[in-house]
Amino acid sequence: MIIVPRFLINFSYDGTNYNGYQKQKGMKTIQEKMETALTSINNNSFVKLTASGRTDAKVHAINQYAHADIDVNITEYKLMRALNSLLPDDIYVKSTKIVDDNFHSRYDVISKTYIYKINVGSFNPIERNYVYQLCKKLDIKKIREATMLLQGTHDFQNFSSNEHKLKDTVRTVNEIKLIEDGDYLIMTFKSNGFLKYMVRIMVGILIQIGLGKYAPEYINDIFDSKIKTNYKKIAPAQGLYLLNVTY
Amino acid sequence: MIIVPRFLINFSYDGTNYNGYQKQKGMKTIQEKMETALTSINNNSFVKLTASGRTDAKVHAINQYAHADIDVNITEYKLMRALNSLLPDDIYVKSTKIVDDNFHSRYDVISKTYIYKINVGSFNPIERNYVYQLCKKLDIKKIREATMLLQGTHDFQNFSSNEHKLKDTVRTVNEIKLIEDGDYLIMTFKSNGFLKYMVRIMVGILIQIGLGKYAPEYINDIFDSKIKTNYKKIAPAQGLYLLNVTY
Repeated sequence: MIIVPRFLINFSYDGTNYNGYQKQKGMKTIQEKMETALTSINNNSFVKLTASGRTDAKVHAINQYAHADIDVNITEYKLMRALNSLLPDDIYVKSTKIVDDNFHSRYDVISKTYIYKINVGSFNPIERNYVYQLCKKLDIKKIREATMLLQGTHDFQNFSSNEHKLKDTVRTVNEIKLIEDGDYLIMTFKSNGFLKYMVRIMVGILIQIGLGKYAPEYINDIFDSKIKTNYKKIAPAQGLYLLNVTY
Repeated sequence: MIIVPRFLINFSYDGTNYNGYQKQKGMKTIQEKMETALTSINNNSFVKLTASGRTDAKVHAINQYAHADIDVNITEYKLMRALNSLLPDDIYVKSTKIVDDNFHSRYDVISKTYIYKINVGSFNPIERNYVYQLCKKLDIKKIREATMLLQGTHDFQNFSSNEHKLKDTVRTVNEIKLIEDGDYLIMTFKSNGFLKYMVRIMVGILIQIGLGKYAPEYINDIFDSKIKTNYKKIAPAQGLYLLNVTY
């Protein structure tokens, strides 16, 4: 019996120049770059990488996690070094760790945390790919009221793209934090799981509330299906970061 | 007599994808993008732009200033709006102001301030074009001692590229500030003028001192011409920002 170790890989990336995490034919993706590097280390025998979840095009990850089974004999440290020597400089492996064969980077997720950065001051070209340049003042008090309604266990179906009909769209948003830092508003979202576009739709609606277009109670109207979420209000990808995954 | 107003333009740019500020044939430069937009506004009659000074390839500007003479009748606000509608999204005009015909954006500079950002923690791919990823701990006390020797009025010839022999290489560095913020070290340099590569050579040498390769007094040895500056030690462009210009 050959024991093939399973590695959990913790990595970070700048999503600016990628069509998202997930592999798509003819597209530049994070998964494709990672699998190419892993396969090269694995004597060119294909290595599949399974991440905690996908991230959209232009979304960044401060801490993404994925697992892969490697046939060659390699230490955790050497795998990290080998990956970083092969990867482009907008993807960086922070650590690798041998885990139990039953560990699964997606099924075993306990919670995920995303942050979303907004600039309410004047347009900053240097940060255009890293902070959403809203450049309008927001009523933080109203946004805070709305986050109180979003937190907790709800059916978030109306806060998702709803493309793929999922059986279970109930999620628990444990915490939404708002931090004001000069012209920046940084929102943190922690949940046991996020549906497709869920963070960006929540942010998009919170911004509309902060601009005074809707009252905070609009959140409940969306939950109650009284209002079809307007996907044009989805917040842009470049302000979003996968901050952490808890196992 | 036709009076052609002179505009002082305050703008910001992400230098990542440019071969620097100054126009060079066949190269993508900030000056070329700005002059193309200005010329288009000026009914396609060429507008020359004169900046406070050039910035190197990949160097950013939070506040750059330049003057231009425009023949068409246009208000300050409309010129700003027209420029921003024509410029790519990595260059942004913050304001424009009609100034005296004798005003000169380079000759009238009183002082300039640059900042340099260093990450002494682990490599961050998201900031690779905006913060120098040194990823090594620095002895800030020693760097601070060295900055004391750099400040003041000196002949900075040995802290410049020395490509073009300048008559006068005496400059006054009014202030070097060091700010530690978590894994970041931010250095601020204020002077009545900077020679070519001067900030990046100073930073490169301060880093060597912070790594313990040289004692702080090494600064005096360089001033005294005992040591030829090693240009391989020049700090990379991506950590450097033109913060402000005082007139």
